[in-house]
Amino acid sequence: MTHRLRRTFIFTLLVSITLGLSAKPSALVFQSDFGLGDGAVSAMQGVAYTVSPELDIFDLTHDIPPYDIWVAALTLDQTAHYWPEGTVFVSVVDPGVGTERKSVVLKTKTGHYFVTPDNGTLTFVAQSLGIAEVREIDEAINRRKDSTQSYTFHGRDVYAYTGARLASGVISFKEIGPKLEGILSIPYQAASFDPDTKSLRGTIFKLDGRYGNVWSNIPKDMFEQLDPAFGETFTITIHQGDKLIYTNSIPYCETFGSVPEGNPLLYLNSLLNLSLALNMDDFAAQHGISYGPDWRITISK
Amino acid sequence: MTHRLRRTFIFTLLVSITLGLSAKPSALVFQSDFGLGDGAVSAMQGVAYTVSPELDIFDLTHDIPPYDIWVAALTLDQTAHYWPEGTVFVSVVDPGVGTERKSVVLKTKTGHYFVTPDNGTLTFVAQSLGIAEVREIDEAINRRKDSTQSYTFHGRDVYAYTGARLASGVISFKEIGPKLEGILSIPYQAASFDPDTKSLRGTIFKLDGRYGNVWSNIPKDMFEQLDPAFGETFTITIHQGDKLIYTNSIPYCETFGSVPEGNPLLYLNSLLNLSLALNMDDFAAQHGISYGPDWRITISK
Amino acid sequence: MTHRLRRTFIFTLLVSITLGLSAKPSALVFQSDFGLGDGAVSAMQGVAYTVSPELDIFDLTHDIPPYDIWVAALTLDQTAHYWPEGTVFVSVVDPGVGTERKSVVLKTKTGHYFVTPDNGTLTFVAQSLGIAEVREIDEAINRRKDSTQSYTFHGRDVYAYTGARLASGVISFKEIGPKLEGILSIPYQAASFDPDTKSLRGTIFKLDGRYGNVWSNIPKDMFEQLDPAFGETFTITIHQGDKLIYTNSIPYCETFGSVPEGNPLLYLNSLLNLSLALNMDDFAAQHGISYGPDWRITISK
Repeated sequence: MTHRLRRTFIFTLLVSITLGLSAKPSALVFQSDFGLGDGAVSAMQGVAYTVSPELDIFDLTHDIPPYDIWVAALTLDQTAHYWPEGTVFVSVVDPGVGTERKSVVLKTKTGHYFVTPDNGTLTFVAQSLGIAEVREIDEAINRRKDSTQSYTFHGRDVYAYTGARLASGVISFKEIGPKLEGILSIPYQAASFDPDTKSLRGTIFKLDGRYGNVWSNIPKDMFEQLDPAFGETFTITIHQGDKLIYTNSIPYCETFGSVPEGNPLLYLNSLLNLSLALNMDDFAAQHGISYGPDWRITISK
Repeated sequence: MTHRLRRTFIFTLLVSITLGLSAKPSALVFQSDFGLGDGAVSAMQGVAYTVSPELDIFDLTHDIPPYDIWVAALTLDQTAHYWPEGTVFVSVVDPGVGTERKSVVLKTKTGHYFVTPDNGTLTFVAQSLGIAEVREIDEAINRRKDSTQSYTFHGRDVYAYTGARLASGVISFKEIGPKLEGILSIPYQAASFDPDTKSLRGTIFKLDGRYGNVWSNIPKDMFEQLDPAFGETFTITIHQGDKLIYTNSIPYCETFGSVPEGNPLLYLNSLLNLSLALNMDDFAAQHGISYGPDWRITISK
Repeated sequence: MTHRLRRTFIFTLLVSITLGLSAKPSALVFQSDFGLGDGAVSAMQGVAYTVSPELDIFDLTHDIPPYDIWVAALTLDQTAHYWPEGTVFVSVVDPGVGTERKSVVLKTKTGHYFVTPDNGTLTFVAQSLGIAEVREIDEAINRRKDSTQSYTFHGRDVYAYTGARLASGVISFKEIGPKLEGILSIPYQAASFDPDTKSLRGTIFKLDGRYGNVWSNIPKDMFEQLDPAFGETFTITIHQGDKLIYTNSIPYCETFGSVPEGNPLLYLNSLLNLSLALNMDDFAAQHGISYGPDWRITISK
């Protein structure tokens, strides 16, 4: 190989790599309560793909219970941590569509982006990933052409469109629109430890729907203040508002198989929060348990 | 940089871009009534991916009600408009599989392609996007190798295979097979305006299943002949065949939040057609409404 | 074009193609019983995408019935044949998570890879695609960083992570971990032909859930020993354990439309196995039929 040819080769390599890298947009991840029964989700994806066919488009879930902002907020937080910096999430659970709720993009301290109505959806990711900056979507710029007469499809014409343009680099974060002071959060009872009564208090954050497991917001670190050992039993009470729904003594286990089929156990879920399950059965269904700010749990020795 | 090196650089750039562009196939979008409970959809995608790993493969929905060609036809039409020219749709809702129904590819005037049994699935996209040309799939060419003994899986062995080859440029549109005169359409009552009675007539096209909203085929433009104002009430009647199912006076609203929870409203859906909803409730379930050519709606002042 | 420029051009072309090819990882296909209701599946995909944004990520299904290894095993086998050599499947149906079941990767003779707990999930692909080599996942190497405290999410932190690293070429098959002797298989009654009674025996492998069709494991080749003709009737009996559940004479048909609506037929499904259906109705629901090793079927002239 001549010297010139070698230089050319290196040049070629650099150009190819540069082209490759510059063309690679961030992942675009959709969440909604639209369900997959009709074309609403695919219309959002079509809008995104029209913005850039180079986008990597994913679905988080479209089975958020209709209008359930609480679940939307939790599901984003359950998932976003596992996606790389730069990932753009579009979440459309929007009971207030057409009212005065703002359309925003949150940039977190971890470099993730969230495109969503500002209705509480950002409650948990704002806490866990940290707010770097919030901007309101300027629909004069960031709205699909020929869409001005559609009142109900902000998901497609504003959120998917804006998310795709941000993920593919067509617009920068600053071009989203004006800076806001913060986001709207849902109030809820935080996990807490009472050293006098040696008890933990928290909220039932969600049900692991497929299996009916009951997930609290009480983290492993706080639980460790009770010095738990595998096999040791703990007293659990669950209230809905002021009403006692469930109380029992339950062993803390490392695996579901540690108790006989149908028996309850206390365990750490994949988020490392305290959770309740029946081995091979559905705890929530068997005991009529639901989730949300109204559902409180206490755990003591 | 020498003159030659500059030329080489530009050359490299052009070659890289050319390779990049020529390698980029069209999007391939699947729809079926297979559900996602087993491997039938993934088998179709595997066949497509085997044709070309460069394909961008998407799912519109696989939850079309079993054998429901009407819904398949509407869902394609709800979605295709939002995908770019060149996109190839594969729709497999095929109650007549194995009978004499034809397998076709429609090219619309907008440059979208639809690979499907010709059983009514193309009714609405043919109307809205326009027929450029229809070709019958020649299975002597366009059928996966070693698949001749499978009677029930045209979806995988013919439609997915042909769609993938078309989207990736392995075959051209002409190589699909012989030209046909047209496609099969489902008869239904079109939207109409009666200036004497100042009333609109139409069909209930579908339910927005997750929320139970009732979508008619009466477009905004036709509705405007009644000079509607937000807040104004209209008389609605719904018949199934000759039987009166529902009648009421309902306000026309810009947003769901304009009426109290549980109250009905008339609104324009994302397709800009007149629709009925209950704010935060399920109109279709509350009033026993379904959809299809048999379900007629009238709207008057 | 000078000679040198031509050489440079060819060089560029080769480099570009090489870069393109070497950058193209294998498809990564996920299956689980997680459902799509929360973020568990998306977390797995985020982990994979973090390993390499060049991966082509697909979902086989996440609606395997909870803990149902039998269905997981069958669904993999129904699908894998249609994906190209090199495809990496990650299957997470793991009732024994946290117990002593092994985490393995199977390489088949066809060059497909399966990342899964070794709990029976590999029963059918091991038979049909052949075992080339099995390796146990060495979690000291093949486990996502900072995940050591999570007991319940092997799916995300071990299986998705390992599958993504294998598919993208970050690790070779040998780097999975130590070689194993074989895999764990579920015992079941194989299809058999009795030439004396001219009857076939087999198992109901699964229900085609959307339509309620009943799929046996009796293949076309074995059925042909009865010299069947389209339209000819056969005597079917179905037992659950020792209990007779169903018996009837049913015509063998090429298409569903060969019998009136609501009538039963015997046909070859997409796997070319004998199956039962009602034209436009649900055979399994109408006759209380389920599936698995406990459900036996006989077919005779």
